[in-house]
Amino acid sequence: MARSETSPATAESMSRQQREISVSEFFLKNRHLLGFDNPRKALLTAVKEAVDNSLDACEEAGILPELSVEITQVAEKRFRVEVTDNGPGIMRQQVPRIFAKLLYGSKFHRLRMSRGQQGIGISAAGMYGQLTTGTATRILSKVPRAKQAHHIEVQIDTRKNTPTILKDVETEWAPQFPRQNADGSCAAPAVYPHGTAVMIEMEAQYIRGRLSVDEFLRQCLIANPHLQLHFRVNLLNKEVETEDGKVAPLVEGQWVSWVRLADKLPTAPLEIKPHPHGVELGMLMQMLRDTESRTIRSALSEDFSRVSSATALQICERAGVDPKANPRRIANREIETLFKAVAETKLMRPPTDCLSPIGEELIAAGLAKEVQADFVTAVTRDPTVYRGNPFQVEVGLAYAKPGDDETLGAEEPVRLVRYANRVPLLYMAGACAINKAIAGVNWRNYGLTQPRGALPVGPVVLLVHIASVWVPFTSESKEAIAHYPEIIREIAFCVQECGRRLSVHLSRRHRDAEIERKKSYIEKYIPHLALGLKGILDFGDKEEGRVVTNLRTMLERTHLET
Amino acid sequence: MARSETSPATAESMSRQQREISVSEFFLKNRHLLGFDNPRKALLTAVKEAVDNSLDACEEAGILPELSVEITQVAEKRFRVEVTDNGPGIMRQQVPRIFAKLLYGSKFHRLRMSRGQQGIGISAAGMYGQLTTGTATRILSKVPRAKQAHHIEVQIDTRKNTPTILKDVETEWAPQFPRQNADGSCAAPAVYPHGTAVMIEMEAQYIRGRLSVDEFLRQCLIANPHLQLHFRVNLLNKEVETEDGKVAPLVEGQWVSWVRLADKLPTAPLEIKPHPHGVELGMLMQMLRDTESRTIRSALSEDFSRVSSATALQICERAGVDPKANPRRIANREIETLFKAVAETKLMRPPTDCLSPIGEELIAAGLAKEVQADFVTAVTRDPTVYRGNPFQVEVGLAYAKPGDDETLGAEEPVRLVRYANRVPLLYMAGACAINKAIAGVNWRNYGLTQPRGALPVGPVVLLVHIASVWVPFTSESKEAIAHYPEIIREIAFCVQECGRRLSVHLSRRHRDAEIERKKSYIEKYIPHLALGLKGILDFGDKEEGRVVTNLRTMLERTHLET
Repeated sequence: MARSETSPATAESMSRQQREISVSEFFLKNRHLLGFDNPRKALLTAVKEAVDNSLDACEEAGILPELSVEITQVAEKRFRVEVTDNGPGIMRQQVPRIFAKLLYGSKFHRLRMSRGQQGIGISAAGMYGQLTTGTATRILSKVPRAKQAHHIEVQIDTRKNTPTILKDVETEWAPQFPRQNADGSCAAPAVYPHGTAVMIEMEAQYIRGRLSVDEFLRQCLIANPHLQLHFRVNLLNKEVETEDGKVAPLVEGQWVSWVRLADKLPTAPLEIKPHPHGVELGMLMQMLRDTESRTIRSALSEDFSRVSSATALQICERAGVDPKANPRRIANREIETLFKAVAETKLMRPPTDCLSPIGEELIAAGLAKEVQADFVTAVTRDPTVYRGNPFQVEVGLAYAKPGDDETLGAEEPVRLVRYANRVPLLYMAGACAINKAIAGVNWRNYGLTQPRGALPVGPVVLLVHIASVWVPFTSESKEAIAHYPEIIREIAFCVQECGRRLSVHLSRRHRDAEIERKKSYIEKYIPHLALGLKGILDFGDKEEGRVVTNLRTMLERTHLET
Repeated sequence: MARSETSPATAESMSRQQREISVSEFFLKNRHLLGFDNPRKALLTAVKEAVDNSLDACEEAGILPELSVEITQVAEKRFRVEVTDNGPGIMRQQVPRIFAKLLYGSKFHRLRMSRGQQGIGISAAGMYGQLTTGTATRILSKVPRAKQAHHIEVQIDTRKNTPTILKDVETEWAPQFPRQNADGSCAAPAVYPHGTAVMIEMEAQYIRGRLSVDEFLRQCLIANPHLQLHFRVNLLNKEVETEDGKVAPLVEGQWVSWVRLADKLPTAPLEIKPHPHGVELGMLMQMLRDTESRTIRSALSEDFSRVSSATALQICERAGVDPKANPRRIANREIETLFKAVAETKLMRPPTDCLSPIGEELIAAGLAKEVQADFVTAVTRDPTVYRGNPFQVEVGLAYAKPGDDETLGAEEPVRLVRYANRVPLLYMAGACAINKAIAGVNWRNYGLTQPRGALPVGPVVLLVHIASVWVPFTSESKEAIAHYPEIIREIAFCVQECGRRLSVHLSRRHRDAEIERKKSYIEKYIPHLALGLKGILDFGDKEEGRVVTNLRTMLERTHLET
């Protein structure tokens, strides 16, 4: 029953309580920020972080990705998540920090589109597993040149945010992952020649539905048609909960496989340097202090994108700063004038081959596979910039005739599928810039109904993808995109273009229906007309038939010309 | 024009790119997570963080807080924020880390209600100032015993998340803060005998309105009636922008002062130990590894709240663990059985004097001061628990007769004022558990209209306060409360109680109005009736008067009995 009583504090007594907070402790206490606020979401987040890492690694190494995802229930509320890839593997000495240290990674310090960017995700999943079950994260990895794989088990020392290694041995690679069913009924993945497997045991809940692992993987396949995927769920109870609380029987314990649709990797995005117009004054000071260049002029042209040596000279002259001055010794006041001169200098927009969009064709194909659609369209906008960061928006729209696709209600809000850097975003739709942009468009212009300030209503799937070297998420769990005005505007433009095309389709369909209606109406009277003519003009049956044919042809022609 | 070309990576080449990310770098790039996504919000966030710290320090030291907040425009988009308090001051050696190191502080590692909890806020404000203007955070602080104040200027080395000290001198305390107008027209704060002043220069924008510094301070005063506050805005242009884009003339450069309403500090919240039912397995393992107790039994009773020595013994016996075992040497498997035994043991709820609610009386008084109200009520619920953390909900409701208060439209959504640990929450209302709870209540039951799934409509102010030892915010900027079901439920209960009272008031008001209507209707005929009787019964004027009086009395009595 220990309690601490408090008497008024003083500066001295407060001083003794001040201490450093490790980033692991911080996120352990704030784990809802990382997507671990409840057992269902925790399962999804863990799968997502592992899949993101695997896809990034495969693409960077130029390998067509093949992944196995397995979820095994080990107790009522306890699951083991295993994700195995055919990627390049991870060097032994890097494994502990990659999997058991928050804020460690290769993607944060560069400007290049990738799924991961923070160096938090997979370690956070391991930390959550450790917190809820006391177990360690198990990693198996084999690099191509090595004969054996290394098997490492780590936990996080949350006080210090450092890995504690519990096991570190060499082992066989393949046998650890029997990927064949006992009855061989299902296409099972081959044993990969190299790759990484990660296993985390955690408190979790497996529920099917809109926010499930199944849905995440399904959406993943749409945005990553080059992905080959195998998925298996093993449950203690052979039934499974779904979102609306019902319990449906499940064929579980079987591998389900998706063969890749595209046999080519997406174009590899390139790394770029920061664009001067996206760099704040304090950052410019820092960059000049850290530069390896010997003169201001070369620092400007070497460390930034879109600054040629001639432009650098021009900036120095405009600022009245000696272009040969040592950038590490220049006064802050001079950097301020440089900063102003940079802002006043016209520069090309940042290069955009740091981005790798899905492309209109593959988006349309993905949607067509998903929906019983009457109309599908997709638009990939040109890249543009927010806060100096290049980004690009793509939108796909699929419209089903009411009743054609039973998953789409004509009276329900459109189904929205959101992606950032090819990763599906399932949670926190309400807080996302994508929702805000779509709700801000006037959909009545395009033939859909829309409650004020909300998503439009209709049998429509909208797919929105934002690709950027740095996606500004509203939280570390990367579920929603922050409301930067430049981003919202770009999404709105892109969505509007799709909306216009939909409206053309709908009005053409409307016109066609109208014609069809008239035509069938007139057609009904042709036989009677022919019969009348037969009586009046004393035609034979043959001539009556010819009149009917001629009238039909006339009708046809007239309406084709309308 | 430097570009890095990339060839397919290997495990080896990737390994070379892996590195640690400092928490400062992380938040610098993600500064929207900290509330610095745009210049207007940045100004508010900086003021809020400084005010939160000052109030916490004063209350901990048992000092009635008196604060001066000053905002000075130094260039078109550049402002200096200065917040001075009469608090206990800060020891010299702690100043650099408190103001220039993220994740450093005294409040994170304890379970006690306070405004600050993360050790991020004020350092983040300084980091933002440094990023946008290259300047340093200036701190002046005087502890009661010292003769002089120390004047320290710091920046953050973002690569290492450590403070860089640019200035560190002894200085006079008072003269730095002239708090008197030239014409002496306005009540200016006295020179405080001790305290802390922090100055940050940053890119910012000062706009009045719903999301402004002014609004924040106004709401702050409602929830902190013991606060004495002085506020001054100095602008280069003597006009000021308001939310709807108009420009109104401003009496600026003048101190505005609010005298405190309550001359007593709120009851100081006490620190508590973690409650066993809120501790996860992994955390239990960590706590037993770290304990100073020599036996499991004493570790359980010393390190947790609500576990007596007898209960500890009972838990050990239920788990089949030797109560005298060394907690640092016990196997994980045994801790798992202990964990289960704890879960099965009935324990008292956590102690709740770690919370300090505002109280029904002060909430009602605060609302009555704010609104031209016809009806005011407030409810403070008993404390309860989420994830082992005690929390408490309070709700105030003020209803104005339509038209009585011009700031409240009868056809607009109710005005919602949100607080967490006495701190007003201005942004991200849509993502907040408070909004969700209120929108989830059926307000039609209480006499208000309500669009489906939205806030109710009517001339009402709703004040909601959540007090907790650990408020789960949806992001580090602490603007919205995460959707924990226990919290949403508690808010809904509390709001419903206020709603029921409102409905009683509204129906009584409705009945009163009905009676009034009938009464005036009958009253109209009394003179005619008397006149008729006078004619029929041949009354004199005196008798006619008596008849009128008697009829009135009868009417009065009848309706009082209704």
